[in-house]
Amino acid sequence: MNTHIRVAPGDLFGDGVFETIHLRPDGPWLLHEHLARLVRSAAILGLPEPDLSELPAFTGEDIAVPGVDPGSDVPRALRIIYTGGRVHTAVTPIPPAVLRERRDGVRVITADLGVSVRRRPPWSISSAKSLSYAENFAARRWAVRQGADDMIWFATEGYALEAPTASVVWLAGGELCTVPPAEAGILPGITAAHLLSLAPSVGLRAAERMVTLDELVAADAIWLASSLRGLAEVTELDGKPRPHSPWTPRLLTLLGFPATS
Amino acid sequence: MNTHIRVAPGDLFGDGVFETIHLRPDGPWLLHEHLARLVRSAAILGLPEPDLSELPAFTGEDIAVPGVDPGSDVPRALRIIYTGGRVHTAVTPIPPAVLRERRDGVRVITADLGVSVRRRPPWSISSAKSLSYAENFAARRWAVRQGADDMIWFATEGYALEAPTASVVWLAGGELCTVPPAEAGILPGITAAHLLSLAPSVGLRAAERMVTLDELVAADAIWLASSLRGLAEVTELDGKPRPHSPWTPRLLTLLGFPATS
Repeated sequence: MNTHIRVAPGDLFGDGVFETIHLRPDGPWLLHEHLARLVRSAAILGLPEPDLSELPAFTGEDIAVPGVDPGSDVPRALRIIYTGGRVHTAVTPIPPAVLRERRDGVRVITADLGVSVRRRPPWSISSAKSLSYAENFAARRWAVRQGADDMIWFATEGYALEAPTASVVWLAGGELCTVPPAEAGILPGITAAHLLSLAPSVGLRAAERMVTLDELVAADAIWLASSLRGLAEVTELDGKPRPHSPWTPRLLTLLGFPATS
Repeated sequence: MNTHIRVAPGDLFGDGVFETIHLRPDGPWLLHEHLARLVRSAAILGLPEPDLSELPAFTGEDIAVPGVDPGSDVPRALRIIYTGGRVHTAVTPIPPAVLRERRDGVRVITADLGVSVRRRPPWSISSAKSLSYAENFAARRWAVRQGADDMIWFATEGYALEAPTASVVWLAGGELCTVPPAEAGILPGITAAHLLSLAPSVGLRAAERMVTLDELVAADAIWLASSLRGLAEVTELDGKPRPHSPWTPRLLTLLGFPATS
């Protein structure tokens, strides 16, 4: 595990795939699911299948952030990066902003991504977690310039797709919902899928649905779901405040996150 | 100049910009124009302005490909890469396929990119030369799987945009044309712009026009224009052969490329 990686210049062109995983005391959270998605993403990009047998075991003292006491409880993330050669790994502290958004929620704006869910080109990599992340970063910076924390992308047909680095999850009439990845041509969210699989255990039904902005506004609660934030509740949508949902701490607990840190 | 670069894991997320420049005996071709575009691309991505004063002078023996005799006439390319920190440079041999496409032309297919020129989102980086190139690579791989060498992207409105790594140039009725970058929301092509600026010297008029597939099919000649290929004539479009244009060697000479190598 290194803080720096030696790469060929050709490795810098975003032509690879990655996963970001929450490091927990018992190991990387949902590791198997993330590795399976890494393999799928590589196939979508047309890269050779990654050799996962080279990965370290990710147990106990293996997982240390350089410069941080291994015994400390600094929240940490595991990055797995693959550009066609060796699989790289890196462990980094989780940025404070991520922990704050999990605790306090996010102010979100919505915007037309300018792409059609019905006209994804045959070579589209929109359902892969690729390293070509500049548009995602640019979208988040734009959201911040508008006074928001994050954004939700909509297709030209008017359906919600995803956030630049998260899935959209909402609660409506006792149903916990997310966007169907295949139909929308978006990345299959691992945190969202795991949450929906646990919904019955807290008395909720689970469903995948295409959703319009009006339907989203009318939902009981909206969250952005991702590996490190877990769930960040949408506390403001397009400038309109939304009440905190009593479900947010319950669902965070269900996902194994401390509800208050 | 190194064949490898040491980067932080965060540098691998395509959140940077680059230029590819043809190295000629008298130095990098159109260097000033490429550096100006690097600065514009960085601004579009929201990166700090790159410090170009750190760049080497790019004269004479500075420019060598590791493992290649500096006195040899191996065609070489200069890559300039910027991810927000130091500006990296690398010199590499020009791949044989690039030289072959300049000499023999390219078989091209056309395809709907699934994006609207009228609905580019406000954070779009489509007019920057960003490192997030996975979609470009995926598109070219898809073209090859269809039995072609390259492709031309069209907007949902039916206008030609660009090729994954080149501008589209065509000749129609004594007018040498390319797509207007600002109107189409595409990368401003340096080779195409330079060629159009030279058009009057060979008795052609120059114009920027939005163009449909029917208009492109009816053109006297079509080329893909880029720094290393210079001009690669489209010798087959969507499976239909096109006659070689007598303008191809003339325009390559005008651009300072050896017409036959």
